[in-house]
Amino acid sequence: MTKQRLYLYDTTLRDGQQTQGVQFSTPEKIQIAEALDTLGLDYIEGGWPGANPTDSAFFDEAPKTKARLTAFGMTKRAGRSAGNDEVLAAVMNAGTQSVCLVGKAHDYHVTAALGITLEENLENIRASIAHIVAQGREALYDAEHFFDGYKDNPDYALAACRAALDAGARWVVLCDTNGGALPSEVGRIVGEVIAAGLPGDQLGIHTHNDTENAVACSLAAIDAGARQLQGTLNGLGERCGNANLTTLIPTLLLKEPYAILFDIGVSQEALAGLTQVSRMLDDILNRVPMRQAPYVGASAFAHKAGLHASAILKDPSTYEHIEPQQVGNARIIPMSNQAGQSNLRRRLTEAGLSVDKGDPALSRILEQIKIREDEGYSYDTAQGSFELLAREELGQLPDFFEVKRYKVTVERRKNKYNKMVSLSEAVVVVKVDGEKRLSVSESVDETGGDRGPVNALTKALIKDLGRYSQVLADMHLVDFKVRITQGGTEAVTRVIIDSEDATGRRWSTVGVSPNIIDASFEALLDAIRWKLIHDDKEK
Amino acid sequence: MTKQRLYLYDTTLRDGQQTQGVQFSTPEKIQIAEALDTLGLDYIEGGWPGANPTDSAFFDEAPKTKARLTAFGMTKRAGRSAGNDEVLAAVMNAGTQSVCLVGKAHDYHVTAALGITLEENLENIRASIAHIVAQGREALYDAEHFFDGYKDNPDYALAACRAALDAGARWVVLCDTNGGALPSEVGRIVGEVIAAGLPGDQLGIHTHNDTENAVACSLAAIDAGARQLQGTLNGLGERCGNANLTTLIPTLLLKEPYAILFDIGVSQEALAGLTQVSRMLDDILNRVPMRQAPYVGASAFAHKAGLHASAILKDPSTYEHIEPQQVGNARIIPMSNQAGQSNLRRRLTEAGLSVDKGDPALSRILEQIKIREDEGYSYDTAQGSFELLAREELGQLPDFFEVKRYKVTVERRKNKYNKMVSLSEAVVVVKVDGEKRLSVSESVDETGGDRGPVNALTKALIKDLGRYSQVLADMHLVDFKVRITQGGTEAVTRVIIDSEDATGRRWSTVGVSPNIIDASFEALLDAIRWKLIHDDKEK
Repeated sequence: MTKQRLYLYDTTLRDGQQTQGVQFSTPEKIQIAEALDTLGLDYIEGGWPGANPTDSAFFDEAPKTKARLTAFGMTKRAGRSAGNDEVLAAVMNAGTQSVCLVGKAHDYHVTAALGITLEENLENIRASIAHIVAQGREALYDAEHFFDGYKDNPDYALAACRAALDAGARWVVLCDTNGGALPSEVGRIVGEVIAAGLPGDQLGIHTHNDTENAVACSLAAIDAGARQLQGTLNGLGERCGNANLTTLIPTLLLKEPYAILFDIGVSQEALAGLTQVSRMLDDILNRVPMRQAPYVGASAFAHKAGLHASAILKDPSTYEHIEPQQVGNARIIPMSNQAGQSNLRRRLTEAGLSVDKGDPALSRILEQIKIREDEGYSYDTAQGSFELLAREELGQLPDFFEVKRYKVTVERRKNKYNKMVSLSEAVVVVKVDGEKRLSVSESVDETGGDRGPVNALTKALIKDLGRYSQVLADMHLVDFKVRITQGGTEAVTRVIIDSEDATGRRWSTVGVSPNIIDASFEALLDAIRWKLIHDDKEK
Repeated sequence: MTKQRLYLYDTTLRDGQQTQGVQFSTPEKIQIAEALDTLGLDYIEGGWPGANPTDSAFFDEAPKTKARLTAFGMTKRAGRSAGNDEVLAAVMNAGTQSVCLVGKAHDYHVTAALGITLEENLENIRASIAHIVAQGREALYDAEHFFDGYKDNPDYALAACRAALDAGARWVVLCDTNGGALPSEVGRIVGEVIAAGLPGDQLGIHTHNDTENAVACSLAAIDAGARQLQGTLNGLGERCGNANLTTLIPTLLLKEPYAILFDIGVSQEALAGLTQVSRMLDDILNRVPMRQAPYVGASAFAHKAGLHASAILKDPSTYEHIEPQQVGNARIIPMSNQAGQSNLRRRLTEAGLSVDKGDPALSRILEQIKIREDEGYSYDTAQGSFELLAREELGQLPDFFEVKRYKVTVERRKNKYNKMVSLSEAVVVVKVDGEKRLSVSESVDETGGDRGPVNALTKALIKDLGRYSQVLADMHLVDFKVRITQGGTEAVTRVIIDSEDATGRRWSTVGVSPNIIDASFEALLDAIRWKLIHDDKEK
């Protein structure tokens, strides 16, 4: 059987930008477009040229992509020709091969929101699409509020779609703009639209996640015959987000019946880069990646229940619907006081620590984890600190150095130019190889700016650690997360530090204290000790 | 038409506890059970008595709920009678009216994971359920891996369900344990199960979100005839989570065809408390509430796109599928450099600032927001700081006091008992009502413990602010969030502080600096100024 082509249309750079708290810069848009292009998508919608300076600049500097870069806009306004609408002109001027215009398909919105007649709206759709086609471009029509419109007035909703098709649109995209349609409705209505004569291979689907059904509505539309699918990476988008391409791509590529019926243009090799692309987008946005995200989340293949974890050790397929490697993700047996000794041994083996079954150290380690988690520590994420805790109990933690005391000062005052400036200074006293050493550092960067107390402490600590200073020179902090949490009966600060070194390794460590500086310092000490152990091992 | 009863079964306290990073204490379990009970659910699964001390303690101290509190366990093991299985005995000893036991329904798992014969497994199900029923309890059977099992060997999967029903189970719950089934499959298989003679009003559905379809799979099972629905609050659960009751409840109660066909036992009044219950769970877990969560997320009714926002001002139904008030949520027109002047005016009105259309201050405010967001500030969340910024541009920000300088010291060293302790001290110099005042505070709490530098700074600042000290006495910090983000070309620290006072008001403010103490201090100053303005207004 020949597979049918199913087209993927990404709108991360346009609808994804409507996410509350998301604001792309032009260089970020370029970086995201390039990452999207590695997946092998058919269309990348870059933004609305003319609507804001970032989007216009993006099209000016647009990267060369294999995907069709598409400019988004709206159908011309009533009372002027398509050629004389300056909003439409700005969209056309972006010079893309494909242009997608949104226009109303719900009669109520035409009269209530636009305040024009129903026929004027159809004419706006017709003339705008014809204008795009006349200029030799590919035209797409986003039928806004299609599903609500169809439920209220099916004839008018269909007339809007036909106006676009008659004018030469390659695609009519059925949009569930307010996200209220349910999968069974979407399936039924798309079926009726095709039965009414609109060709399925010219229909797209655009859904939102307001009932947590954006993915299911997209699949229902494909089941019913639509052949283009719009969505965003990581499900970004207005309100609750758009259909999540990060979920839809592996589902369409790996699962029946889709894997058998369709060719979506994404290779298995590209799929193996999916987790990385997803995390990269979060990195750019400075968002914490969602642990529970399907396929790509850090917890997507985490097996915490004791029963599950022991079965996974026998055969991963028992509790996994796909292999994590297929999407570039990894299996995790998280450490916590729910986990039993068999998980613990597996986790220790992964950290290069082999411990015999029944070794009494195993229950001591589990007990320590329980005590520390009650105090506010978290070893699910801080794998580096977990390893150090285990080494301590196993008597395999070298005594590299001892911190005798430290003192940090942060001062903010006017400088001689009468400008408020701050300065941080740290003094650290350590004992290393039997010798006491005092170091002091300021947190001043190349430009004279203050980098804060944690920076000053780090510099003071590493500066004079004898033979260790050299080893630690390539280490730097990549993320720093702070949460107020419960430690016993009082609120404490939990700091998680992600560190990286020149080998590209990343490791996470944790510190807990009511005092944020203390908690940071503890996580920092763990990060240093982890690196000293691992650099030593690799020699 | 009489509505059919659809039963809701919550497993937040059991399957929800399998979430990576989640660890309930017994008092937290009690608090959550009480909150769940306000929603009017039918069943609350409290945990697995005997599997861990927390769950056992919970049943010992269980709150009195309207919902049936249910103990979870597994079917008896082969080679012993139900009465002699001590794992099952621990479950029965919890003394709950309902008991739910998980048992295999997939032939492969019986032989590969349990290593027993297929007939032995059926006997384990039968004998365990009969044992529960014989003791006068209500029995539920969770058919583990039912959908995968049915696809491989439908006869055996059905035989497992029939064994439970024949032994007197009230419910057989069809579980998609590894989350791999898609909605169309679930719908088809549940239909076939009912066609094979199993009564729909004794069938439940338990799904996971590994393909982002847990909600859709639940709805598909109900469409096909199942009448009990299992899920968790906020979609907590193993790996990618369970079916999200926080989404399913409003969908079933508000949307067709469910609202017409079914009675789910949740009142409209209880529904209006849904957002609060959802946020409370996040509070207990110290998780950041998911902004994009359907119905209850802070962004669920946030209208960022300029076109949407202006239509919403005309008629909210244009871009909202339900009224936010129905689930206890609220509409937001977030402020960001995407937003236009009409949104801005609306937001200002909400903050009690009325500005005429076309006032040049409007574009100055938008410009300031743009500049500050480029520096790393975020006004989507920090509504308090947004208001202060606007007041500044409008000339409506009183000059309460001026901070001339401050200095914070954090020291960690051994005390006289040779124990490492830390101490923070802050000196703040302010000018208030023309007078310069120096204050110094230590961050020591009642127990002599150190509460850290931000606490010391707060105390020193508030201590001697003349007539303002009194007003600020009832203010306290409820959350403190720190992120590393991009400010211009360098990494900066963004601190968001949530404050609360005796009136129960909460407000959020933001500070940005490469120095975490500076950033915290800036957010703190905004929090104080916001309170001074609002307390003054209310007099």
